[in-house]
Amino acid sequence: SERQGQPPRDSPAPPPVPPGPSACRGPPVGGGFSRPAFLQLTSEELQRADDHAGRAVQSPRESRRRLPWSTGYAEVINAGKSQHNEDQACCEVVVVDRRCSPRCNPDLCFHYWGLFDGHAGSGAAVMASKLLHLHICDQLRDLVDILQDSSPPPLCLPSDSRALPAERNRAPLAQADAELRNDALPRFHLEKAVSHESLVIGAIENAFKRMDEQIERERTTRLVAGGCCALAVVYLLGKVYVANAGDSRAIIIRNGEIIPMSREFTPETERQRLQFLGFLRPELLGNEFTHLEFPRRIQHKELGKKMLYRDQNMNGWAYKRIEEDDLKFPLIYGEGKKARVMATIGVTRGLGDHDLKVYNSNIHIKPFLSCVPEVRVYDLTQYEHCPDDVLVLGTDGLWDVTNDREVADMVTEVLMSYEPNDPCRYTKAAYELVVRSRGALKERGWRLANDKLGSGDDISVFVIPLGGPGNYT
Amino acid sequence: SERQGQPPRDSPAPPPVPPGPSACRGPPVGGGFSRPAFLQLTSEELQRADDHAGRAVQSPRESRRRLPWSTGYAEVINAGKSQHNEDQACCEVVVVDRRCSPRCNPDLCFHYWGLFDGHAGSGAAVMASKLLHLHICDQLRDLVDILQDSSPPPLCLPSDSRALPAERNRAPLAQADAELRNDALPRFHLEKAVSHESLVIGAIENAFKRMDEQIERERTTRLVAGGCCALAVVYLLGKVYVANAGDSRAIIIRNGEIIPMSREFTPETERQRLQFLGFLRPELLGNEFTHLEFPRRIQHKELGKKMLYRDQNMNGWAYKRIEEDDLKFPLIYGEGKKARVMATIGVTRGLGDHDLKVYNSNIHIKPFLSCVPEVRVYDLTQYEHCPDDVLVLGTDGLWDVTNDREVADMVTEVLMSYEPNDPCRYTKAAYELVVRSRGALKERGWRLANDKLGSGDDISVFVIPLGGPGNYT
Repeated sequence: SERQGQPPRDSPAPPPVPPGPSACRGPPVGGGFSRPAFLQLTSEELQRADDHAGRAVQSPRESRRRLPWSTGYAEVINAGKSQHNEDQACCEVVVVDRRCSPRCNPDLCFHYWGLFDGHAGSGAAVMASKLLHLHICDQLRDLVDILQDSSPPPLCLPSDSRALPAERNRAPLAQADAELRNDALPRFHLEKAVSHESLVIGAIENAFKRMDEQIERERTTRLVAGGCCALAVVYLLGKVYVANAGDSRAIIIRNGEIIPMSREFTPETERQRLQFLGFLRPELLGNEFTHLEFPRRIQHKELGKKMLYRDQNMNGWAYKRIEEDDLKFPLIYGEGKKARVMATIGVTRGLGDHDLKVYNSNIHIKPFLSCVPEVRVYDLTQYEHCPDDVLVLGTDGLWDVTNDREVADMVTEVLMSYEPNDPCRYTKAAYELVVRSRGALKERGWRLANDKLGSGDDISVFVIPLGGPGNYT
Repeated sequence: SERQGQPPRDSPAPPPVPPGPSACRGPPVGGGFSRPAFLQLTSEELQRADDHAGRAVQSPRESRRRLPWSTGYAEVINAGKSQHNEDQACCEVVVVDRRCSPRCNPDLCFHYWGLFDGHAGSGAAVMASKLLHLHICDQLRDLVDILQDSSPPPLCLPSDSRALPAERNRAPLAQADAELRNDALPRFHLEKAVSHESLVIGAIENAFKRMDEQIERERTTRLVAGGCCALAVVYLLGKVYVANAGDSRAIIIRNGEIIPMSREFTPETERQRLQFLGFLRPELLGNEFTHLEFPRRIQHKELGKKMLYRDQNMNGWAYKRIEEDDLKFPLIYGEGKKARVMATIGVTRGLGDHDLKVYNSNIHIKPFLSCVPEVRVYDLTQYEHCPDDVLVLGTDGLWDVTNDREVADMVTEVLMSYEPNDPCRYTKAAYELVVRSRGALKERGWRLANDKLGSGDDISVFVIPLGGPGNYT
């Protein structure tokens, strides 16, 4: 069973928590440096993991307990851009303990993988890596019986939410009674059908919000610095939910084909949302920025000339006569990896960043950032997966230098060089992805096999098998 | 040449217009009933086109002048839901006369097709069908030389925008001189590359905005009632630009395959944009509506219970405790064709509707509607098209009862029954699409061949050939 692989660090089920908004306390989170618990690093190994010069790739030891599903993992620290590795990771099996006592269905349990790419400090990434799955657990608590009931979710629950789902499954008589009472309510013609799947999506979305709120509340007491991108995968009742807030990426490699499971949220991909907000709430721009986009800075002496621009409604470009207000700095500026919101941050979704301000100003950036992930769903039961079919999660350190096709080819190459039932093959694949994206240290810095510049960023990779012998039950 | 097919009604080039925001006057637009000019209906035929009982399908007569590219067209009036056919259409070849005098490039000319599906009166649809292409022409005027120059568009133009593009093409000496003067400007490292294509997209987007502003300005003097969806196609310099604002649809059928060229803008597809606006500007909800979505109306006695909801950030659903504020009517409500913004309108993009209010209230709906189209581009030169490859445009009357695949199969079936070089085959195809979507009048109303309910709505269809002998030069 999945619990043999790697039991959650603290207990298979999260500890009982008091109700209310701060339900997810979880284990204590220090402000200090840490690596994922499942690596089980000794303090000496922890020191070595912090070596920016050697950049040794870290993977779970074969001699120690395996991750659930024989998940592969590898990571490497950056080439010096920050003191510590600001990526964090988590892999857990979580049992959801229902809030109500009558147990009419089996326990609900989900598998969980998380990647957190920190910036401006590792505090938010560390905290999220230790707590986000507990928030997801908390959001699922009300749904334990509803999700395991074949009938559509009830649109409305009694104020004591414990009662209804349990009743519905108890005994035919009790159920008939409940239906009778239901009939006393007038029927509405317009009722929207809501799927079980969309309840899980809603639970994950709200878990991200609660996590962000907790970081905000505890950022001063727990010394949580900075922010982080978050990529979380939940496997629940046959379906894989991939939730992404930031610029990490998830792809499924199935029979050699690539199925994208996420998209990146950057100033370029979210331009129109940000410009719309700046347009509707100009006070957030602090008289320093304009919500219009221009292809370059405008000089004062260019007033009156015509410049290309686009506003929150446009995808194309047009010329406009330059006015005084256009001399402000554009809210979105720069291209590709250099694109920034308010000249400051290059990702537009994630957790934390509550104190982030424009340099030398009092303008907050958080209102423009979203903590809500996009959740994509993949039904694992709709396809018979072979041992080479995997879900790859990587922080942007991987994807900056290695595209989807190259990742898929590398993974397939490594997997084919090991026996299909060798549980180490997924960690070997993750290891190779990190090594090849980091490159080798040459005279002119870290270089890939093709002599292009390797990634100087932190790199973290999960390779999660979707099929194969006895991986999940 | 394309002009032989069907010269624009008034003149090949739009009449000279005074500069400024109301440049596009065009021909006079009455408040009365009208059908597309290219149908060349006599007043007697015009009467017959208005017959809700017989619902005769109208097409351009073979004996009269053909539309450019041998475009096929057909339309039918609704089964009684409004007094007149509120769909309108336009097909034109437009010559763009540059604002500047020196002519260094050939004239720029574009082909144009427009479908306008009116609601709450036909005024906006009639006006847009007569003027939108002139606004597009107006927006392209500054770009005549830029678009025909192989170098990237200049990011900045001198205040007298006539000078630069002309100069750049004049003589080597003048060009060198211009570059020298250019060098006097400091170089910027961060310059965004802007394509010619995106200038055309920007021109079309802004043309829709100007059209909407003109409807607003002249709605009282010209008696322009209601609003309309707008689907416009521009063929310019080898590329087809499909601009859609509303719930009409465009598909390309190529070698039997379907390529979607638009998407519909409805309360469901634009839910998050509308909820975001309602959340940021609650005063627009007039204390009557809530920006939250619920799957059904909530009753006062349900206060304190938990109800499924989603907010502007969510795609999934979750339970929330019902508070007083949740008893307000949801901003977005209903499903599929019945989904409405503020219980009033089922499309969220289009032109007009400036006076639209929630029934029996003073709450304006226009702030939630967008007049900006989504523009998709199809490069006609990238593929060798055969005479059966077509672009089909249809108002929702077509797509409500006939899906993409059925449309593609019907078109292919009709085209194959005529000679490939028969110029009438595209009108035959459009005719069949309209006839089969309308159905036949049976005892239980208009019925399709499969006995399902036919479309009781206005239906208008263009079938535009993308290849074939001598269709375009």
